[in-house]
Amino acid sequence: MCELLGMSANVPTDICFSFAGLMQRGGQTGPHRDGWGIAFYEGKGVRSFHDPEPSSCSRIAQLVREHPIKSHVVISHIRQANVGKISLENTHPFSRELWGQHWTFAHNGQLDKKVFDWPLGFYRPVGTTDSEYAMCWLLGKLRDRYDSPPAIEELSATIQQLCDQLRELGVYNMLLTDSHHLFAYCTTKLTWITRRAPFGEASLKDDDLVVDFCKETQPNDVVTVIATEPLTDNETWHRMETGEMQVFVEGLPLNSTPISSV
Amino acid sequence: MCELLGMSANVPTDICFSFAGLMQRGGQTGPHRDGWGIAFYEGKGVRSFHDPEPSSCSRIAQLVREHPIKSHVVISHIRQANVGKISLENTHPFSRELWGQHWTFAHNGQLDKKVFDWPLGFYRPVGTTDSEYAMCWLLGKLRDRYDSPPAIEELSATIQQLCDQLRELGVYNMLLTDSHHLFAYCTTKLTWITRRAPFGEASLKDDDLVVDFCKETQPNDVVTVIATEPLTDNETWHRMETGEMQVFVEGLPLNSTPISSV
Repeated sequence: MCELLGMSANVPTDICFSFAGLMQRGGQTGPHRDGWGIAFYEGKGVRSFHDPEPSSCSRIAQLVREHPIKSHVVISHIRQANVGKISLENTHPFSRELWGQHWTFAHNGQLDKKVFDWPLGFYRPVGTTDSEYAMCWLLGKLRDRYDSPPAIEELSATIQQLCDQLRELGVYNMLLTDSHHLFAYCTTKLTWITRRAPFGEASLKDDDLVVDFCKETQPNDVVTVIATEPLTDNETWHRMETGEMQVFVEGLPLNSTPISSV
Repeated sequence: MCELLGMSANVPTDICFSFAGLMQRGGQTGPHRDGWGIAFYEGKGVRSFHDPEPSSCSRIAQLVREHPIKSHVVISHIRQANVGKISLENTHPFSRELWGQHWTFAHNGQLDKKVFDWPLGFYRPVGTTDSEYAMCWLLGKLRDRYDSPPAIEELSATIQQLCDQLRELGVYNMLLTDSHHLFAYCTTKLTWITRRAPFGEASLKDDDLVVDFCKETQPNDVVTVIATEPLTDNETWHRMETGEMQVFVEGLPLNSTPISSV
């Protein structure tokens, strides 16, 4: 299995603190030694870092941890390989362009090999993982159905239906983004927390690190972090249910109270 | 205008030396301050680094210069913006998946804005550059014509015809790869050099740096480096002609004498 990390924020925000916890699980406090990757969105643009080396001893992971890259949306993944050898082409997150948007995807879990019999549309996998195959299938279905992005409510409902189909084949915890919305789908484990004023301190489970978000943030900042397991031990994370999907935009779950009216 | 750098090698090779020269042109010895990017292929997998900051003072460029990433194919670009604002989504190289391969593209030059009237097929640009638009058009044409990769001779001829069409709209120096072949098309400036045994010393034009490739290589290594302008001042680089395309594979121009028979 693997570990997922996602972030949605209303202002460009760095994820150094959370990533510092996650990377320890890549060979240090966790067994996920088989590569890691992270995608940072700045507007419509995305930059990704991928490394088939364990994150806990990767020089590139060290850079990501220390060099604050400010972003609205982040998806990261550290891998413990099951289907597909350890290699760069099998290292999440995976990306494709759809509707002139860079979509990025990461998966925790394992699907029955029957998934490889599902007919693909436009997108073809480059590597050999069930995860990349599932993404190609899902994005191909979206593309088949819509020539351009539908309203977010309809898009979310369609993505949830497609995820429900994938879940029938096994464990399917997923983070997916179109550069603006972050779609989180849970089968077995996915948790999230929204941080907003008044900010407090958080202490990482996996590393000897405490951050006082009060010193790092502005009063109107809203940031949601999503992870397979809570990353901090002094905050309350929401555990998602099986089959539940949450859509985050600008730091908040969709349809929640916008910050301006709080 | 911009600077291009490409590499094709028969063994995984790092490009630290050449990149050290190129990055100086991003704000130090050259005016290309508007971002830079590089894509490294390892087998079918690719990892990219993109930064809208000048390469000469980018922390990520420093990592790429110092941390040897060994690769068969590399495409890099430093940008001096003309069409399209300075932003991450306008930072080369650009990539798309075609036939289950990650294709990567970088362009030096400028095309008439008429290019934006050319009808696109499957691929849509995310940013606003003429370059990304041209890539979407070119890959869309390939996809329309072939369901799967044709023989390399046919593929090369088709790519050259498409590049000839783009050249009618302006300056079009291009590097393009399907992860195995590196296609280099010249309108005004593109030079290349193949290094093989007996290896000698090379000294960078743009930085106070000399490398003795004899100490860095094995006798059977073959590496071709392609750049808009020669990167060294003590070697002879091949200058390409207007309308010329070269295809490099495993370090050599296609159809040249393979190393094993030398």
